[in-house]
Amino acid sequence: MTTVLVTGANGFLGRHTSRVCARHGHRVIGIGHGYWTEEEAHFWGVSIWHELDVTLAGLLAHAERPDLIIHCAGSGSVGFSFDNPAQDFERTVETTLEVLEYIRTCAPDARLIYPSSAAVYGRAARTPIPVNSPLSPISPYGVHKQIAEELCRSYGRSFGLHVAVVRIFSAYGSELRKQLLWDACRKATRGEYGFAGSGRETRDWVHAEDVANLLLLAGAHTSPDVPVVNGATGDGASNAEVLAVLFAALGVDRVPEFSGSQRSGDPEVYVGDATEARVWGWSPRHDWRCGVREYASWFKESAS
Amino acid sequence: MTTVLVTGANGFLGRHTSRVCARHGHRVIGIGHGYWTEEEAHFWGVSIWHELDVTLAGLLAHAERPDLIIHCAGSGSVGFSFDNPAQDFERTVETTLEVLEYIRTCAPDARLIYPSSAAVYGRAARTPIPVNSPLSPISPYGVHKQIAEELCRSYGRSFGLHVAVVRIFSAYGSELRKQLLWDACRKATRGEYGFAGSGRETRDWVHAEDVANLLLLAGAHTSPDVPVVNGATGDGASNAEVLAVLFAALGVDRVPEFSGSQRSGDPEVYVGDATEARVWGWSPRHDWRCGVREYASWFKESAS
Repeated sequence: MTTVLVTGANGFLGRHTSRVCARHGHRVIGIGHGYWTEEEAHFWGVSIWHELDVTLAGLLAHAERPDLIIHCAGSGSVGFSFDNPAQDFERTVETTLEVLEYIRTCAPDARLIYPSSAAVYGRAARTPIPVNSPLSPISPYGVHKQIAEELCRSYGRSFGLHVAVVRIFSAYGSELRKQLLWDACRKATRGEYGFAGSGRETRDWVHAEDVANLLLLAGAHTSPDVPVVNGATGDGASNAEVLAVLFAALGVDRVPEFSGSQRSGDPEVYVGDATEARVWGWSPRHDWRCGVREYASWFKESAS
Repeated sequence: MTTVLVTGANGFLGRHTSRVCARHGHRVIGIGHGYWTEEEAHFWGVSIWHELDVTLAGLLAHAERPDLIIHCAGSGSVGFSFDNPAQDFERTVETTLEVLEYIRTCAPDARLIYPSSAAVYGRAARTPIPVNSPLSPISPYGVHKQIAEELCRSYGRSFGLHVAVVRIFSAYGSELRKQLLWDACRKATRGEYGFAGSGRETRDWVHAEDVANLLLLAGAHTSPDVPVVNGATGDGASNAEVLAVLFAALGVDRVPEFSGSQRSGDPEVYVGDATEARVWGWSPRHDWRCGVREYASWFKESAS
């Protein structure tokens, strides 16, 4: 059993990551924002929860020199980053710097996994997007994820930290209370069936449990060279397909309607090349259809 | 006459920049660290000096909505960045974010010049280094300058800020109290003539007054596309050549001695391609030999 520190353990990705780590027999320390009861935290696999900012001081006081740190804390919204770029920067970049400084100064044996985002690619020239594609993010959110990655590489090269980066595509699953699936469930509840876009927008839907498994697996591949893999299935499903399955699972006997206009800045197809993650032995277990049905069940039972 | 805000106006580059702006008839507001008398500040062209951190609050209180901001504040030492990466990040990246936020929220008409560094290139594949070379900095300092540039581009793309970036090569001139020329003057004063390296290390020596002229000129070329130019002459001089001229100017009748071993991480030739700056009409006026002699005079009169 090793000790794993999960920052942002109370968030969408943090919850799934904590649970997967605990299932694999690891002791999980969680730090980050948000109140939850001890019972809830334990349900998600978190042994000890500290509600505090991710700062060097907080880590010094509470991190207990973990073997592995999975830094799930950070901003998670492109829209927020346009409205509040400085706060987005603080949440994504500055927390990463604090974690890196903690490892450099106090826990040099701790390995770090940084969950980055497919948003770092911006408009990619080809799809599925290979991990060595040029990075040209188009939102402050994407820029900040790229900058956090660069800090990881800098601390690997200059200070020998062992890090790995996973660029996550369209992660979904229970607890995700934003983005397409969430909005669609809420709309359907209100009897609304209209969506922006053409419906042909195609995304690489990857279940949060699969992502969490990859993040944990990445712990065996950290190095000062900071390897990067895509957290992607390599396959895409269009918004029209995904919403059709979701509506059916919700028992909504309607076809989703699309405005027809593509949202500016939204690439039509965004699918990742998962070759490197598969070389590590990872393979996603959740088919998106099953995952979307499971999401609908979760929404009906827990979130509606 | 326009109002120019120079951050870090009390530093090496800030002083020369302020003086050049004042000479061109602009009113210069300076903010940053370091005490100097009103007389000294005025000597360097600064009309009003505010000794304070470069923060959004400080800028709101004192910047007077300038027409142009030249953000000279920031870290200026590769060695410091290895010893204090988080502080280096704060000085270089966070101050830049504060300036960008100030412009975004309160002074959208202000144009911004960001003095970056040749350190963003790292080990470049060819020399003179073209401005579109891939960036692969090898020090935290270089990474942080690259990140500051990326923030400038992000604010240009996402919020329409008008910015230009100048990547400065080996800037030198009076008031530079570090690096090769300063160390050599101090050593010679003590009767020491030994230096690390082979002496063949070749740098693009560009006089601070020429750099300052380019920074001011860049104010006419800012845009949301954030153009980048090299602040470089296109020519190189080796450490052996430079120190020979310096010693002669200091009246030191010795030949500098070199240890012979190249310093790891130091590329042998580091010269910039100044094509884009020349297209803007810039041309450096100081030959390095004259500039080095002038430096020796300044050292003897003011700094020894």
